[in-house]
Amino acid sequence: MDTNNSSSNLPIGVFDSGVGGFTVVKALRHTLPGENIVYLGDSARVPYGTKSRETVIKYSLKNASFLCSKNIKMLVIACNTASAHSLEALRSELDIPVIGVIYPGAVSARQSTSRNNIGIIGTEGTVSSGEYGKYIRELSNGTVNTASEPCPLFVPLAEEGWVFGEVPGLVAHKYLSRLQRKLPEMDVLVLGCTHYPLLRDIIQNECDRIFSRRIKLIDSGISTAQVVQQKLESQTLLNKNNLHGELQVFVTDTSKISTIGNRFLGEPLSGVERVDIL
Amino acid sequence: MDTNNSSSNLPIGVFDSGVGGFTVVKALRHTLPGENIVYLGDSARVPYGTKSRETVIKYSLKNASFLCSKNIKMLVIACNTASAHSLEALRSELDIPVIGVIYPGAVSARQSTSRNNIGIIGTEGTVSSGEYGKYIRELSNGTVNTASEPCPLFVPLAEEGWVFGEVPGLVAHKYLSRLQRKLPEMDVLVLGCTHYPLLRDIIQNECDRIFSRRIKLIDSGISTAQVVQQKLESQTLLNKNNLHGELQVFVTDTSKISTIGNRFLGEPLSGVERVDIL
Repeated sequence: MDTNNSSSNLPIGVFDSGVGGFTVVKALRHTLPGENIVYLGDSARVPYGTKSRETVIKYSLKNASFLCSKNIKMLVIACNTASAHSLEALRSELDIPVIGVIYPGAVSARQSTSRNNIGIIGTEGTVSSGEYGKYIRELSNGTVNTASEPCPLFVPLAEEGWVFGEVPGLVAHKYLSRLQRKLPEMDVLVLGCTHYPLLRDIIQNECDRIFSRRIKLIDSGISTAQVVQQKLESQTLLNKNNLHGELQVFVTDTSKISTIGNRFLGEPLSGVERVDIL
Repeated sequence: MDTNNSSSNLPIGVFDSGVGGFTVVKALRHTLPGENIVYLGDSARVPYGTKSRETVIKYSLKNASFLCSKNIKMLVIACNTASAHSLEALRSELDIPVIGVIYPGAVSARQSTSRNNIGIIGTEGTVSSGEYGKYIRELSNGTVNTASEPCPLFVPLAEEGWVFGEVPGLVAHKYLSRLQRKLPEMDVLVLGCTHYPLLRDIIQNECDRIFSRRIKLIDSGISTAQVVQQKLESQTLLNKNNLHGELQVFVTDTSKISTIGNRFLGEPLSGVERVDIL
């Protein structure tokens, strides 16, 4: 018999340092349209990518604590830097399933490479954590080579909406050329920051040009949505009563997120509420 | 008789959202080499330029409270955004003189224009506050025209050290062309963010080219150091016992500031200490 867990109607909690996580929400809503989602963007302390592990863990615990007060059935860390630093801390603190974006992205990258050479781009925090490389080596028993390159300017470019044209093209060329020198045989590139899918076209073009082959780009958000679906199914937590789930958005600071959120989410954003959790 | 106030040996407190304020410290140490300085970089919550007025005021009050615990004789807000939003709040809370960077920059700009057309570039927060324009209009009885343009990508470029070459050149060209369309008669440009002096050469080149005349750039840090000197003199607070003042640096997060601080400060940086004021 197909039983429904009594918690299945509860929302999924999702947090990110700001708006980047909306690209993960977009994937979640595509894969799981019936799920209710409560999102927290920590816009008062954004960005996380340049901050220390200790500080990011502290912020992640505060974000999770707020979302748990909304009675969520699962927590998704929709930020690569927060996933890299604070997944274990959150799992040990919380009694609900916690999903980060790094492992799902690593699995997808491992499955996609034929040349066994995977590149990773991300924030300084994500890259220096080495988490993507660690998982990919584990998943491949050390048969896959990895190299990574921090791309700190991609975040402000995406937030500015400068995602086409000469400036982002030049910036992408600079970063990806460095990666090419480290890993010339690369055929798969992990977009290891939730802002990067907005620059997907420019990254794809520069990659194909610099590596002289078609490079497969991995958007961890899409892989994460699939893992969330599997986890909800295996725990009989899928919400089957809904056709169109609700999206409730909280932020820790008002500025900007309401105006640029649409671009990341791919749907109109309304009713953003500010909360003080500082 | 030249009396010395008993507080004159106390340090000057300086805060900024991160490393940008070191350009103000550099100017202070040049103008007032005998003064002891205690600096706080709020690197755990950087940047301020994209955050709301309310949030920036909250952070500024916390920073000031930490510096006051170090028994400072004066507070310098070495951040344009924090000066724009929180000068009044800090003045009403503290019993020591509080100096922001905006008014000194406005005075210097007013004195430097012959065409009575002053441009201002800064963060979104500083530009939307309209503080520079307000002071310049007051100082000139409304005879000087102003226009401003937010340049959000300049901060990450300066932090990355991308201050020469094609990328910052293109970015500067884009922002300054917008300003030229608003204020074609401009002859003075205020660098209304403490990060921008690092991009001074590229801004100067692009300005001269776009406006087809020599544009005078105003570094508010230098003007602020002069105002600090006058204020210390008038309150007999100048430290006359020292030839070489000490610089003590605190940060709220460890990452990056120690490694990129030298570039902003123009002297070697040592003994950076992390404090938890969150």
